[in-house]
Amino acid sequence: MITKEGKIVLASKDDPIVLESGEKIGPVEVAYETYGQLNEKKSNAILICHAFSGSAHAAGKKSQKEKPGWWDYMIGPKKPFDTDKYFVICSNVLGGCSGTTGPSSINPETNKPYALDFPLISIGDMVKVQKMLIDHFGIEKLFCVAGGSMGGMQSLSWMINYPDNIQNAILIATAVRHSPMQIAFHEVGRQAIMADPSWQGGNYYGVSIPAKGLAIARMLGHITYMSEESMEEKFGRQRKDLKSTFKYNADFEVEHYLRYRGDTFVKRFDANTYLYLTKAMDNFDAANGKPLEEVIKGHKYRVLIISFTSDWLYPSKHSKEIVKACKRAGVDSVYCEINSRYGHDAFLLDLEEQATLIRNFLNSSAKVKRHEHKSGL
Amino acid sequence: MITKEGKIVLASKDDPIVLESGEKIGPVEVAYETYGQLNEKKSNAILICHAFSGSAHAAGKKSQKEKPGWWDYMIGPKKPFDTDKYFVICSNVLGGCSGTTGPSSINPETNKPYALDFPLISIGDMVKVQKMLIDHFGIEKLFCVAGGSMGGMQSLSWMINYPDNIQNAILIATAVRHSPMQIAFHEVGRQAIMADPSWQGGNYYGVSIPAKGLAIARMLGHITYMSEESMEEKFGRQRKDLKSTFKYNADFEVEHYLRYRGDTFVKRFDANTYLYLTKAMDNFDAANGKPLEEVIKGHKYRVLIISFTSDWLYPSKHSKEIVKACKRAGVDSVYCEINSRYGHDAFLLDLEEQATLIRNFLNSSAKVKRHEHKSGL
Repeated sequence: MITKEGKIVLASKDDPIVLESGEKIGPVEVAYETYGQLNEKKSNAILICHAFSGSAHAAGKKSQKEKPGWWDYMIGPKKPFDTDKYFVICSNVLGGCSGTTGPSSINPETNKPYALDFPLISIGDMVKVQKMLIDHFGIEKLFCVAGGSMGGMQSLSWMINYPDNIQNAILIATAVRHSPMQIAFHEVGRQAIMADPSWQGGNYYGVSIPAKGLAIARMLGHITYMSEESMEEKFGRQRKDLKSTFKYNADFEVEHYLRYRGDTFVKRFDANTYLYLTKAMDNFDAANGKPLEEVIKGHKYRVLIISFTSDWLYPSKHSKEIVKACKRAGVDSVYCEINSRYGHDAFLLDLEEQATLIRNFLNSSAKVKRHEHKSGL
Repeated sequence: MITKEGKIVLASKDDPIVLESGEKIGPVEVAYETYGQLNEKKSNAILICHAFSGSAHAAGKKSQKEKPGWWDYMIGPKKPFDTDKYFVICSNVLGGCSGTTGPSSINPETNKPYALDFPLISIGDMVKVQKMLIDHFGIEKLFCVAGGSMGGMQSLSWMINYPDNIQNAILIATAVRHSPMQIAFHEVGRQAIMADPSWQGGNYYGVSIPAKGLAIARMLGHITYMSEESMEEKFGRQRKDLKSTFKYNADFEVEHYLRYRGDTFVKRFDANTYLYLTKAMDNFDAANGKPLEEVIKGHKYRVLIISFTSDWLYPSKHSKEIVKACKRAGVDSVYCEINSRYGHDAFLLDLEEQATLIRNFLNSSAKVKRHEHKSGL
């Protein structure tokens, strides 16, 4: 597989990107990876949109030491996103902390990190930046855009904002908008970060890290990504054999695991990015209050929607709402609910059936394409 | 209704209570309220066990200003726990912060608040103190012990530890033991408290209050007490019209509500009590690893078990485990799953059907009693 890592600067201080809020930002640096080769017609490109804590590193590894990308099972030669056929692109989202401009980046106005001077961004803004990246590659129409969770919101946003620039969309474990429960869990995480005195109103760069607050936010996130079943299976009521006599040790395995996940997250993720991305998700309302079917009506793309039985954070009913809108709008769509014990994490863990569905969906689209060609459509 | 408020000192420094852990504590002051009158035979007493954030103030109000007790709908003349017939007692649990000895009480060894020198306590220890209170009243056998959530754990503990001292038990929205998910949510709350610099290793009394940490813990608790449905109904995606331009305001109604609930909780609840009681619940394993049916076998009490359809924190399967154990053990039990949208909070909010079930359960027990008497049993 030909893997490339790249950075590109879009817009500039004088010619900034106008965000949905009306605020402006520029320059915007975008970190991306690509896998496979773009064909001559530039018709084989697939954009992978990462979820909340993901990055551009979706597949492969560039050194022995590096971990394979977060969707490595899916992307590569003969894999569902087959890099022998497709040119796969994944970029870090606007507002992120893995190479793309976000609150930890330098504000050209002040030469200091933006912190909370970074403008509020939306899922639509992330997608706007992705569109600019695609333009940079000279790709007019993506063969497919795909993503799970926050990545699915981006896919949905592509369907609405750039309907003529995609041929297929894959939406996994996602929603048209967050329910109050999803907002509520995010808000607890944000409060935990902002309650950490090291957060200092967001101006902690180079001084400290709101490590405790961010770790707590992540611990909570992890609970919502799992299912009661999977936690029961993984931890039960197993206890750690701890030497310390401190009364509030992580004596249950599950406590220990969550603390560990919280602590490792802090090393790779920026607390302000946590605030910005969760807020972008909470504010997301794909059709801006209109019925979804109205804003996707008449569009020619095909859509694959996947949800998981044990995902209680983005339960299947959210996906079914999208399916219903597609059906009402006459948009060609396929829906599959996968039986899984892994909760919301299933889109990253329960890969076999997902792989088959994605492979067949992409293959059948390629067939439709060939057929259209033959019949002169 | 004759309402009395009382305090009693049990045990002493020299004659302390031995806890399940082997640690000792004394004296233990217990705050309680009683409603109705104890009959001559002392056979009409009902003990109400409060849940995590409850108190001895279960019913009535002693002044115009005071809020009615947390189960006021249930306790009073002609109410299910009919104070014209029954003598109802409710006491604040050991480790609590509403009158009964807990981590905020003065340690007689140091003349300072216990803080984390307070010994780890168990649900069984809470029940042991309740048994001493009952003894003080000269009650040999309770007509009934009843409670929801942590209160249900206490009821269950009475069934196991003092089987001959209860005639009926009511267990609402509770569990034999916490699942890893329940432990995980508690652990995030504890971490939020302990991460607050004002917590100071628990030694904050008279100096500061870990208000932010405790509020975050409570916010999270509230989410788990509600259901997605009830949150959708109550808040939807309604926004507050806020004057402030701070980016991370509580702009959604649900955020505002949770912050408000967090902030008001801090005024009435002790952060260390939060740690001790959640840990007692997490450590609770009613039969200490044995099958529950083994430890309740042969006992003559009757049991009413209630759960709620939308309660995802203590889902019905937990209650059904208790029902199954009762059936296997030949213990006379009735189970009802109530259709409710209120999640775990239903035991405090969805009262009408609960009231009928409890009323009929208590009445039928009284009938059995009369029948036994008539037939000379």
